[in-house]
Amino acid sequence: MTYFSRLSAQVAEVGALCVGIDPHPGVLDAWGVGQNLAGVEKVALGTVDALGDKVAAFKPQSAFFEQWGSGGIAVLEKCVYAARQSGALVILDVKRGDIGSTMDAYARAYLGDGPMGVDAITVSPYLGFDALKPALDLAEANHRGVYVLARTSNPEGTDIQMGRTASGTVIAQTVVDQAHRRNQLSGANAVGLVVGGTHDSIGVDLSDFQACVLVPGIGAQGGTISALDTLFAGTDALILPSVSREILYAGSSAVRLREAVDHMLGG
Amino acid sequence: MTYFSRLSAQVAEVGALCVGIDPHPGVLDAWGVGQNLAGVEKVALGTVDALGDKVAAFKPQSAFFEQWGSGGIAVLEKCVYAARQSGALVILDVKRGDIGSTMDAYARAYLGDGPMGVDAITVSPYLGFDALKPALDLAEANHRGVYVLARTSNPEGTDIQMGRTASGTVIAQTVVDQAHRRNQLSGANAVGLVVGGTHDSIGVDLSDFQACVLVPGIGAQGGTISALDTLFAGTDALILPSVSREILYAGSSAVRLREAVDHMLGG
Repeated sequence: MTYFSRLSAQVAEVGALCVGIDPHPGVLDAWGVGQNLAGVEKVALGTVDALGDKVAAFKPQSAFFEQWGSGGIAVLEKCVYAARQSGALVILDVKRGDIGSTMDAYARAYLGDGPMGVDAITVSPYLGFDALKPALDLAEANHRGVYVLARTSNPEGTDIQMGRTASGTVIAQTVVDQAHRRNQLSGANAVGLVVGGTHDSIGVDLSDFQACVLVPGIGAQGGTISALDTLFAGTDALILPSVSREILYAGSSAVRLREAVDHMLGG
Repeated sequence: MTYFSRLSAQVAEVGALCVGIDPHPGVLDAWGVGQNLAGVEKVALGTVDALGDKVAAFKPQSAFFEQWGSGGIAVLEKCVYAARQSGALVILDVKRGDIGSTMDAYARAYLGDGPMGVDAITVSPYLGFDALKPALDLAEANHRGVYVLARTSNPEGTDIQMGRTASGTVIAQTVVDQAHRRNQLSGANAVGLVVGGTHDSIGVDLSDFQACVLVPGIGAQGGTISALDTLFAGTDALILPSVSREILYAGSSAVRLREAVDHMLGG
């Protein structure tokens, strides 16, 4: 079953919400745990335990685990394992982007069957959409997904992403178009997009796009789920908002975490 | 002492060469070691042992360690530790790029004093040069370096990198200009660039740039060190060619690895 089919089924069952697992200093404080790896583990596993049956996907943010070296990656492996057992899908936010056999190694790390194999990853196209090919190939072969950064939620991204390629297309739109072409060829819809939910207008035309659009920036960064229908009007893409801090700041209580998810889905 | 001062001293002493540590499948075969983590460790530590006194910097490629999960990162930590003891500087090739507290976590992971703290890292600007600020800040504060991808060695990168920003500048040039401005403000020259050595023309104007330009694509990708004087004519930047496979394919013999470096520096 393709990644996109699994995700669609999951969204149909529990609703369209991805919860980011970002164990950053403010979250560790909100959970009353130490600023250490044990605290990171409590947040990561606690979030999975509390919400695994209630969200379509988890999105662990690799940086907050990498910060602790190999011990942090071992905790991330535990988190990924628990999340994959929970029923929710796992989108690992790593924003990798490289070329050739290096990109292939990243693909094998995250889209293979190793200890860090997940359902999907985020990737960055500065080295060219086509440089991502080893990851797209492996995602399609292994029924996984890849989300390519198109238009990110932060204001600093505008100058490059809303710029134009050497051949004259808006850069974020080129990413959209190439992802769409790839999905048409494969039929697998393995290639999703990252399009931020914080701008007045998304700045790209998604009218043909059929796969999943991951929408970060909801909550702490100012975007709201209720605004997404308008922001993403006119596309049949599967819109998957991703919320991290707005939920994790509820703290270690499973009840309060589940209430935060209900509030987010209801709002 | 700033990163740039340390690097300059190192280059003055042993010459301008960075050796990439890319333990990919072909290299493991060339070394006669297994396609496993023990093989990766032999290549990584063997390269450092053989060449630590002979090269300005090592550039471990994170992907080939990440591929093995937390165990791979533990080997990368050993490699980084050994390399930092060897006298050569360590430029960890991670191409991270994110925003806000996430970028800050990446900076702390690699430019702090944790187990994976190195002399410099590579970063990717698709989310905006200014989004990299947490890494630039920490690099300057901790006397470390950051190499921002400007113009990469692969052909797929051209369409975006030689495109234009929303404000009309060539994108790779914007990266050059912003790195230069940052270095002028800090006086530390902590911000280097990645500019590939495989194109007929580098496509950017480096005439004002004073810090280090890391030049991958030498050797296996077709660039040559002898062509760099012409390719980078008219800049006072410190040009640091990076060679990986051309050297690592010499295999496990320290003598042959050292000969490969001599050959590279002499050619």
